[in-house]
Amino acid sequence: MSLSTQPYKGTRDFYPEDKRIQKYMFNKWRDVFELFGYEEYDAPVLEPTELYLAKGNEEIIQEQTYTFLDRGERSVTLRTEMTPSVSRLVAAKRQELAYPLRWYSIPNLWRYERPQKGRLREFWQLNVDIFGVAGIEADQEIIQVADATVLSFGAKRTMYSIKLNNRALMNYISNDFLGLDSVQSTTLIRLIDRMNKMKAPEFWGLVEAIFSPSQRDAKLTDKLKKILNAKTMKALPKEVAASEPAQKLGKLIELLHLQGISNAVYDPTLMRGFDYYTDIVFEVFDTDPENNRSMFGGGRYDGLIGQFGVEPVPSVGFAAGDVTFQNFLESHELLPVLASETDVYVILIGDVYERAIKPIQELREMGVKVAVDLTGRKMDKQIKTALKKNIPYALFIGEEELKKGQFKLKELAKNSEESLALARIVTVVKDYRRK
Amino acid sequence: MSLSTQPYKGTRDFYPEDKRIQKYMFNKWRDVFELFGYEEYDAPVLEPTELYLAKGNEEIIQEQTYTFLDRGERSVTLRTEMTPSVSRLVAAKRQELAYPLRWYSIPNLWRYERPQKGRLREFWQLNVDIFGVAGIEADQEIIQVADATVLSFGAKRTMYSIKLNNRALMNYISNDFLGLDSVQSTTLIRLIDRMNKMKAPEFWGLVEAIFSPSQRDAKLTDKLKKILNAKTMKALPKEVAASEPAQKLGKLIELLHLQGISNAVYDPTLMRGFDYYTDIVFEVFDTDPENNRSMFGGGRYDGLIGQFGVEPVPSVGFAAGDVTFQNFLESHELLPVLASETDVYVILIGDVYERAIKPIQELREMGVKVAVDLTGRKMDKQIKTALKKNIPYALFIGEEELKKGQFKLKELAKNSEESLALARIVTVVKDYRRK
Repeated sequence: MSLSTQPYKGTRDFYPEDKRIQKYMFNKWRDVFELFGYEEYDAPVLEPTELYLAKGNEEIIQEQTYTFLDRGERSVTLRTEMTPSVSRLVAAKRQELAYPLRWYSIPNLWRYERPQKGRLREFWQLNVDIFGVAGIEADQEIIQVADATVLSFGAKRTMYSIKLNNRALMNYISNDFLGLDSVQSTTLIRLIDRMNKMKAPEFWGLVEAIFSPSQRDAKLTDKLKKILNAKTMKALPKEVAASEPAQKLGKLIELLHLQGISNAVYDPTLMRGFDYYTDIVFEVFDTDPENNRSMFGGGRYDGLIGQFGVEPVPSVGFAAGDVTFQNFLESHELLPVLASETDVYVILIGDVYERAIKPIQELREMGVKVAVDLTGRKMDKQIKTALKKNIPYALFIGEEELKKGQFKLKELAKNSEESLALARIVTVVKDYRRK
Repeated sequence: MSLSTQPYKGTRDFYPEDKRIQKYMFNKWRDVFELFGYEEYDAPVLEPTELYLAKGNEEIIQEQTYTFLDRGERSVTLRTEMTPSVSRLVAAKRQELAYPLRWYSIPNLWRYERPQKGRLREFWQLNVDIFGVAGIEADQEIIQVADATVLSFGAKRTMYSIKLNNRALMNYISNDFLGLDSVQSTTLIRLIDRMNKMKAPEFWGLVEAIFSPSQRDAKLTDKLKKILNAKTMKALPKEVAASEPAQKLGKLIELLHLQGISNAVYDPTLMRGFDYYTDIVFEVFDTDPENNRSMFGGGRYDGLIGQFGVEPVPSVGFAAGDVTFQNFLESHELLPVLASETDVYVILIGDVYERAIKPIQELREMGVKVAVDLTGRKMDKQIKTALKKNIPYALFIGEEELKKGQFKLKELAKNSEESLALARIVTVVKDYRRK
């Protein structure tokens, strides 16, 4: 019986044409992050399971991760997100690192899910974090980086919006403004987090069920409605708008607008599920009505590093998945057709390989990327291969060419050719690459 | 109880200074491969276990890999090498791919081993393969790429040697020249593969034990000794030297010497353990007497793709581990000190952040990589941070600077500073980066 050629369910093989797209995307990300002074880090794809249990998501660990015992009976998990790992790295060198840290990574992550559009078992995720800045300048910078990341692919700000909220503001609303107890608060916040997944009457019915009879008499539902329907911070009740977390969020939005990030808007319903967020949260939404959904998001999570028994470090970051990001680029036609990295495809005429090695080597020394056919097939088949590989030029080397030191260079897309010396070939090819 | 900050046993965290070295190494590799027209591919880190079982190494699977059942009771394995995955990819599109394929990848691999110097549980491995060329031009090119890979770091050919053998030649010696049966042949080849791990008398004792009394009478041991002691192909018995596989290997070594790869030598004891090699095999050895060991190797494995039920494809390739390669670079002092990618560290004087955003953004738009301190600490602390991060320049922005449009740029290593306009800063910084 022969072996299956299929990759494991929910994963992707990256053939060169797929890898080229991934590299294009990742390298653009890297360029943006480095302009802002961010440095790349990495961590193992396998982590001790306890790293994820600390966040209290035992159910998720049991059902949605790749967790197993190693041969030494230690429980290990294929990483499901990068934030626990990066917090571990910072905590391990808490004292010796030079803050603020600006760190990014593009790890592959694993989740045991039923594969569906936009959701795979193995995916990549860019992670960007700034550690050691308590002020909103850090939140502002992280959102600026997120914005620059999308813009760098040629997107316009009309194609996406950046929705913001403040978890501390939600706590203020819930505890101080509405007067809920901590159990009611938690239930309400989780409910709002799922608000967009249900119909309005269902949602408000569940909200009512949280309140006590006296709270219902005090019309808390109406008060909450007014808040959750607010399109801007000005529409909030005065008392709420005057609160410290609302002021902070207002200041942040103002700073972003000042910088031209005009698509930054307040969204009182934005919670972001993760329990570790403590303050500002944000999400970048695709504005395409066909595809109006969250692309990625982040926020401030000041408490996480302290779980490792060290003094906490202020932390703000965001993460974006490769599949969702690529879908956005494709649906807005922002992915260019990517040519082969190879410049020249050498086709040998007759038995000249040994003597062709030298000129080929010279081209490489001058920086030209050269693949040689080497199959000895008929010339038209070799040309077809070069075309199929999307390589711009074919170069013919035979007895005569070697004698004259002039080689026939054919631009395959135009089907035009001329005989040129090596140095001239280098110029022509490099000019083409620059276009 | 607080969480451990340690990574999982036998794995590494990559802090930015570690990741910088890895990126330096990997990007140099990529540059070399692309000069030869190789394209990058990738595959999932988790593969169906059967992919590895096919090679018949059930014991290795059981004891030396991370193998577990997923929640659907499928046996999966963290990839231990890339050759089975790349063979799977080629087999899956056997008919539609444009041969020859030149493919490379730099995957992370997992082995369940006792961690020790140079051996980790998670490591990276560069993999380079050419598919679809049956002639020795492919073997020659793969070895040329291996050689160029080492040279690209500034190594000299005296620092390493490239040892070559031909598995078909060994089969000829064993079956035809010595007249062994297939069981004897297999035992002998495995024994020679472990030859360097034992003392000569022990080795030759085990060899004697393979032979029958009549074979011992025919002095097979002496005949084999003469072969295994051969330093060049000329030292082989005439009959052996005239055989087709010896001629082929001789021709290959000649081709390599012709190209200046003068450190390519015949080594009759080189086997390379993997059963899938069918023809030419080679290994790159560090010549440092303190560290005289195999750095990496490869060879031809024409049979592997056929295991997927498709027509076989001629295949030659090599693989090199990141740890061994980095050790080589370090012991030969070939790793440069790598500076930060960030050009400029901005230190704000007073409460000017909002107004500083614009000039900072302008610098970035002109391609300067700028990190801003943002902590509001005392100036000398901020300068210390820039020094610790190994960033070449500090840039001071305060009220006065913003008014004048002239900013103090300090070259930290020299402790020299001057006041410059933004455009001039861009020039100074870019000049520095080019150095």
